[in-house]
Amino acid sequence: MTPQRLPAPTSRIAPPDRLLPVDPTARAIARRLYDGVAGLPIVSPHGHTDPRWYAENEAFADPSSLFVTPDHYVFRMLHSQGVSMEALGIPAKDGTPVEADPRAVWRLFAAHYHLFRGTPTRLWLDHAFAALFGLDERLNAANADAAYERIDVALKLPAYRPRALFDAFGIEVIATTEGALDDLRWHAQLAASGWKGRVVTTYRPDAVTDPDFEGFRANVARLGEITAEDTATWAGYLEAHRKRRAFFKRYGATASDHGLPSARTANLSPADAERLFLTVTTGAPTADEADLFRGQMLTEMARMSLDDGLVLQIHPGSRRNHNARVFARFGRDMGADIPGRTDYVAALKPLLDAVGNETALTIILFTLDETAYSRELAPLAGHYPALKLGGSSIRSRA
Amino acid sequence: MTPQRLPAPTSRIAPPDRLLPVDPTARAIARRLYDGVAGLPIVSPHGHTDPRWYAENEAFADPSSLFVTPDHYVFRMLHSQGVSMEALGIPAKDGTPVEADPRAVWRLFAAHYHLFRGTPTRLWLDHAFAALFGLDERLNAANADAAYERIDVALKLPAYRPRALFDAFGIEVIATTEGALDDLRWHAQLAASGWKGRVVTTYRPDAVTDPDFEGFRANVARLGEITAEDTATWAGYLEAHRKRRAFFKRYGATASDHGLPSARTANLSPADAERLFLTVTTGAPTADEADLFRGQMLTEMARMSLDDGLVLQIHPGSRRNHNARVFARFGRDMGADIPGRTDYVAALKPLLDAVGNETALTIILFTLDETAYSRELAPLAGHYPALKLGGSSIRSRA
Amino acid sequence: MTPQRLPAPTSRIAPPDRLLPVDPTARAIARRLYDGVAGLPIVSPHGHTDPRWYAENEAFADPSSLFVTPDHYVFRMLHSQGVSMEALGIPAKDGTPVEADPRAVWRLFAAHYHLFRGTPTRLWLDHAFAALFGLDERLNAANADAAYERIDVALKLPAYRPRALFDAFGIEVIATTEGALDDLRWHAQLAASGWKGRVVTTYRPDAVTDPDFEGFRANVARLGEITAEDTATWAGYLEAHRKRRAFFKRYGATASDHGLPSARTANLSPADAERLFLTVTTGAPTADEADLFRGQMLTEMARMSLDDGLVLQIHPGSRRNHNARVFARFGRDMGADIPGRTDYVAALKPLLDAVGNETALTIILFTLDETAYSRELAPLAGHYPALKLGGSSIRSRA
Repeated sequence: MTPQRLPAPTSRIAPPDRLLPVDPTARAIARRLYDGVAGLPIVSPHGHTDPRWYAENEAFADPSSLFVTPDHYVFRMLHSQGVSMEALGIPAKDGTPVEADPRAVWRLFAAHYHLFRGTPTRLWLDHAFAALFGLDERLNAANADAAYERIDVALKLPAYRPRALFDAFGIEVIATTEGALDDLRWHAQLAASGWKGRVVTTYRPDAVTDPDFEGFRANVARLGEITAEDTATWAGYLEAHRKRRAFFKRYGATASDHGLPSARTANLSPADAERLFLTVTTGAPTADEADLFRGQMLTEMARMSLDDGLVLQIHPGSRRNHNARVFARFGRDMGADIPGRTDYVAALKPLLDAVGNETALTIILFTLDETAYSRELAPLAGHYPALKLGGSSIRSRA
Repeated sequence: MTPQRLPAPTSRIAPPDRLLPVDPTARAIARRLYDGVAGLPIVSPHGHTDPRWYAENEAFADPSSLFVTPDHYVFRMLHSQGVSMEALGIPAKDGTPVEADPRAVWRLFAAHYHLFRGTPTRLWLDHAFAALFGLDERLNAANADAAYERIDVALKLPAYRPRALFDAFGIEVIATTEGALDDLRWHAQLAASGWKGRVVTTYRPDAVTDPDFEGFRANVARLGEITAEDTATWAGYLEAHRKRRAFFKRYGATASDHGLPSARTANLSPADAERLFLTVTTGAPTADEADLFRGQMLTEMARMSLDDGLVLQIHPGSRRNHNARVFARFGRDMGADIPGRTDYVAALKPLLDAVGNETALTIILFTLDETAYSRELAPLAGHYPALKLGGSSIRSRA
Repeated sequence: MTPQRLPAPTSRIAPPDRLLPVDPTARAIARRLYDGVAGLPIVSPHGHTDPRWYAENEAFADPSSLFVTPDHYVFRMLHSQGVSMEALGIPAKDGTPVEADPRAVWRLFAAHYHLFRGTPTRLWLDHAFAALFGLDERLNAANADAAYERIDVALKLPAYRPRALFDAFGIEVIATTEGALDDLRWHAQLAASGWKGRVVTTYRPDAVTDPDFEGFRANVARLGEITAEDTATWAGYLEAHRKRRAFFKRYGATASDHGLPSARTANLSPADAERLFLTVTTGAPTADEADLFRGQMLTEMARMSLDDGLVLQIHPGSRRNHNARVFARFGRDMGADIPGRTDYVAALKPLLDAVGNETALTIILFTLDETAYSRELAPLAGHYPALKLGGSSIRSRA
């Protein structure tokens, strides 16, 4: 594969130095540094794309279902300014009718586009509008229809299908993320297709490791069916994870990924861990026991990583589904994930005591709390061979 | 009213670019941006001025009682460097005699003025000294008397009376803050005076909503007398608030304002809220119950805002009266208010669950903890239509 | 003493403007400011040097035992990248054999020197290599032996003995830190030597004030033997501290120094303090009681400072010996000290209530949590005459 990029035309809405320092001396240095890396292929270990795109390689349906309705950074910001999520066409799980016309959604989006001023989301969207669709004017109510037409026409072209964009963007490899119970059908279809693009999966078992996840117990039972293991027992449950990790590795997985409200870890004795497992799967666990179990499972996953080589990725510190009304009407992952202050030094110690000095293990810790970087995370990473630091998702601050 | 400003003469102690970036490219941009807004009228929703000034329109008495003794940012910084508050003329409530000569206070202030180097307080004072009184030399022991004379003479002039300064500063509207039990006599006098300047009040009920406030129970009883409501009952107490809010609105109030040690909120059932009210007004509340009551009252105030349209302003996170000796001798609000780390994500959830999605409500949240902005506050404000962010008081860091 | 400095030759690895801003306008200002202070004598109140150096004035043994093995900022960073501490010659207390050849240690260090890119440690080392030994090339595997030779030869010269360096660096005074049980023999030898360099001790009593310190009870007993006081009693224990502080003052001490996991302070009644003392020295104290005792001892030390004039230095917030395996094999103070979030506002109140308004007392508070500076520490220091702020150890973030 020869990585190629779409030409990035000069556009008033995305001038080439828009992210560089204003001082000319610093700007020249930054430009030199940027030009040295701008052409490198993209290795995206946490890419948030849908494997079905690459498997089916269908055209994207329309501008709204590509840029507005699936992107909670877009619609919940508009929601916070008083735009209703229903009018933006966000599907409601309680049956409330929502806007079905993508042109109407786009007009509403365009009419409020000025509200994104100063946000990473606008930087992101303007870049896409300029570099991919040649838009030269900031989106607004007056040009909404013209922009819609231009993007909609382009999306029908072969060059805008997922695999073509994958190549044009110069992607060397991208990782998607699938739940532990996923059958990886799109990855299987991809593997059978003969396409050369490298799209790998990632093992994300929150639905079967987090006692507070919706349907946790049914999920654990289903995990047993899929793997032919007795997940009513601690040993069978662990073995089921090992089998699923091996299955995910067959579709390219190089990592597991774990989202948790805190960075708490635990390293219980096998007997205590088993007792806790029975409590969360059959008893009436307290909030603290549920949290302890999540922490214990991180350490179990780290131990499995020592055997199968998967990188352990931890995303702690997000209080999910904060907005009770939005959660009730639209369900989980609708953007109401608020970063909270997170303690790392004490919280990670049990995990680090267990595996932190293993040079063969790689733990990647992400954070949403930038104040923890220099105080806690860099010093921890500067002590433990296994620990590496990931970035934080700045778009979440928009 | 045609907003006008006093001419800001060029002065060595307040050069015009003193707050702009040092890099010439950035400075030119900043200057262009500043010039675009410098002439706009001032809308000051939280102005910290005394309505009596505008009502009586008397001359300010002397430089010390204008710039030193009422400003805890000034005298407590000097106190921290070993200057006694008594010598600065701060009235002691325990009867300790204090310096009564404003010239002696001014000399002591001037002799220690170098200690304000690098503080927002010096920026503020130097601006006032230069722009209003034409001082061209940094205040010090040698020029203290000359500076005093110059300011004192000016203060006797008609142009330096409160209403004249209000016009000269280009103030379109300024909000003062009064307690729930205040009779708003100065606002009444203002309204009767025919003066065109717009000075509005703000409803600040801490003395009757905070069980830890000095004289809380007597205050609640007094609230009942003023409103002819039975504030021994929860229903009567709430109704009394409604009446006072209506009374404040008659004097221009557009907002209520609430100072709390934490951002804790609550949304109890009416029965539980009533029980808690009886505990804090007649029982022996724990510290936690007092805190819970403050949090419940925020939600009650938000509900009243839905009815009467007042903006809800919250100032959480200040540990007030930290210095026990200063509090004992000089009383409350003497500057010993220390910002503390404040959790917002969990603390605000009960309030936001109750009213956060109301587009007709405006909650303004101030903070003294700048590390919470990008991690917690911006994401919260980017999810809840009702929530807006206010600034933080940088002078408190001086 | 006429302070003199070694000439700092221009070197490619330490260009003179390496720490100045990149914008030319700002750089010129920074250069002017720096040149104004660069020649001043060094007053180092917390110098981390060994008094034995100055007392014996022997040549440093070799480059590795000067730059690598005693510096946990160096070896634990390499350890975090998978280099074994044993191969770096770090003495193991469990008897594991370690590399004994300083040239082998140096070669390993040099081969991994690129890993220090972007760290304060490299800035520090490059400065020393350039200014003291004239190295002009970044250390690496290829030039390791040549660099070793050059440094090793220099270390044998009289100009590189400790006292000569002390003079060449322009040190006016440097403070070392010794434990409460130290006999200060090197300071005594220094005093007897007639050398004019001023090296003073500092009283660091953690081993006898921290119930969690290894050998705490035996240390307290030993304190009694040294001072001929009955340290089984609270009164005798306090008197023993007073005697040791007086002894340290005879060797120049101007300060005490205290390291604690939190900033907690206490001001118990004498009876409660005595009871707590008996619990931690003879009973089974809880973690909370141990912490409370540390906090009480800060206040006791502050009271003694009012009598004997020693400055009270507090280093709170470091979670020491975080890496269990490193601690087990190599012992304490091997670099695994992780800064943690630290509360100051409530934690320091008991101490500040007791002595915070004393203008004759100086408390210096250090911090490893830079997010606390503007929110908590600057406001506290701006209220309490006794409180001053120290810097934070940025090298710990490397």
